[in-house]
Amino acid sequence: MSKRNILFKISYVGTNYHGFASQKNSVTVSDVIKRSLESILHEDIYIYGCSRTDSKVHANEYYFNIYTDTTINCDKLIKATNSFLPNDIVVLDCKDMDMDFHARFSAKYKQYIYKIWNSNIRNPFLENLAYHYPYKINIDIIKDASKYFVGEHDFKAFSNKGNKIENTVRKINDIYIEKSGELLTISLTGNGFLYNMVRIIVGTILKVNKGDILPCDIKKIIESKDRKNAGKTAPAKGLYLNKVFY
Amino acid sequence: MSKRNILFKISYVGTNYHGFASQKNSVTVSDVIKRSLESILHEDIYIYGCSRTDSKVHANEYYFNIYTDTTINCDKLIKATNSFLPNDIVVLDCKDMDMDFHARFSAKYKQYIYKIWNSNIRNPFLENLAYHYPYKINIDIIKDASKYFVGEHDFKAFSNKGNKIENTVRKINDIYIEKSGELLTISLTGNGFLYNMVRIIVGTILKVNKGDILPCDIKKIIESKDRKNAGKTAPAKGLYLNKVFY
Repeated sequence: MSKRNILFKISYVGTNYHGFASQKNSVTVSDVIKRSLESILHEDIYIYGCSRTDSKVHANEYYFNIYTDTTINCDKLIKATNSFLPNDIVVLDCKDMDMDFHARFSAKYKQYIYKIWNSNIRNPFLENLAYHYPYKINIDIIKDASKYFVGEHDFKAFSNKGNKIENTVRKINDIYIEKSGELLTISLTGNGFLYNMVRIIVGTILKVNKGDILPCDIKKIIESKDRKNAGKTAPAKGLYLNKVFY
Repeated sequence: MSKRNILFKISYVGTNYHGFASQKNSVTVSDVIKRSLESILHEDIYIYGCSRTDSKVHANEYYFNIYTDTTINCDKLIKATNSFLPNDIVVLDCKDMDMDFHARFSAKYKQYIYKIWNSNIRNPFLENLAYHYPYKINIDIIKDASKYFVGEHDFKAFSNKGNKIENTVRKINDIYIEKSGELLTISLTGNGFLYNMVRIIVGTILKVNKGDILPCDIKKIIESKDRKNAGKTAPAKGLYLNKVFY
């Protein structure tokens, strides 16, 4: 049994990665970190991530823990790991935790944000960092729509096929929508999110904006538990894991 | 003689380009635009740029004009050009001007901004978009230092070798320094800038911050007209042409 359980807080640009979790035949954030840590620690390292972010999804804050026998202190570990990592991944912090701490199961809440560049002209600086939505957004209507998601619901209609989780009940604590110039940011905090849930919620909010459905229709879509009734899955590149609360 | 003089307002991420102006054996922003416009207009097009930005320098706003016989209206030209351009260059606007308008010579003032990520930890989202400066910045001292550049001066000490311009007198209207979280932005507005002038001014401001020279020493450096006395040339990736005033 290992002697230490170390929690890492990192940030990454997801553009060049097939998500966080390790997969066959593709490079993931987890693979790159594992290789860096194994080079430093000279041990086999398993990365316990806080969330399975998709291909091209970003993280302002992401956490993972590792079990290790190393005696290297955390300050040195941050510097050493950052010197191995590529420019699009950075270790922000790391600290020792109790042995029973788990980056995923110990998380109480997570906050995701979704960025939309709302202009008829695309923004070259946000090409891979926000979804370019050129149509007019009625902020009052989408704020109204977002309220229906808040609370504890069965979000089965907001999860893509391939999700084998039986319990699809999740609680969304709050949804905030802010517009700064042409950049719209939707923040969602909840106790857990199903596969693609945030992106389908955003797609459904934009379906309301387009006028295809009314804000109050969201209640019926949730109750239907049928993915077909919800909106499209919004593109991955606008999504960021923003905060994890332990 | 061509029938129209059209002014284009564009924005670009400079990371992948060897600056704006055409050069032998390297891809520049101007080359890519020329190729796009020639495909649309079926004419040989010469691009008159407002400024010779360096390799890896960005532009929030950049202007160029072309002379052409086309009858395509400006709205259609914007759309057509954007459909040809790569994701890191975008046409924001275009309009017909008097025949004697010139994007460079008609400019009254230009504003450059320089972005510094001031944190001991690098920011993966700003890797190519700001200079990572990990040392403590004393904002009062650098604001004090910046004042010495304002006004009309001979900026010969703030231009890199290879600059063959005989008249090195330029006027800086104002310099603003703002800090938002860990992002420091230095904005400089002036009637013209010598080769590398903004980057050397920033390097000299950081030399003051480091304590190697005092703010009041800048007066003597300007008067010396000797490049050796000024600070290092700050990296290109933090520099943006931000506005041009006609």
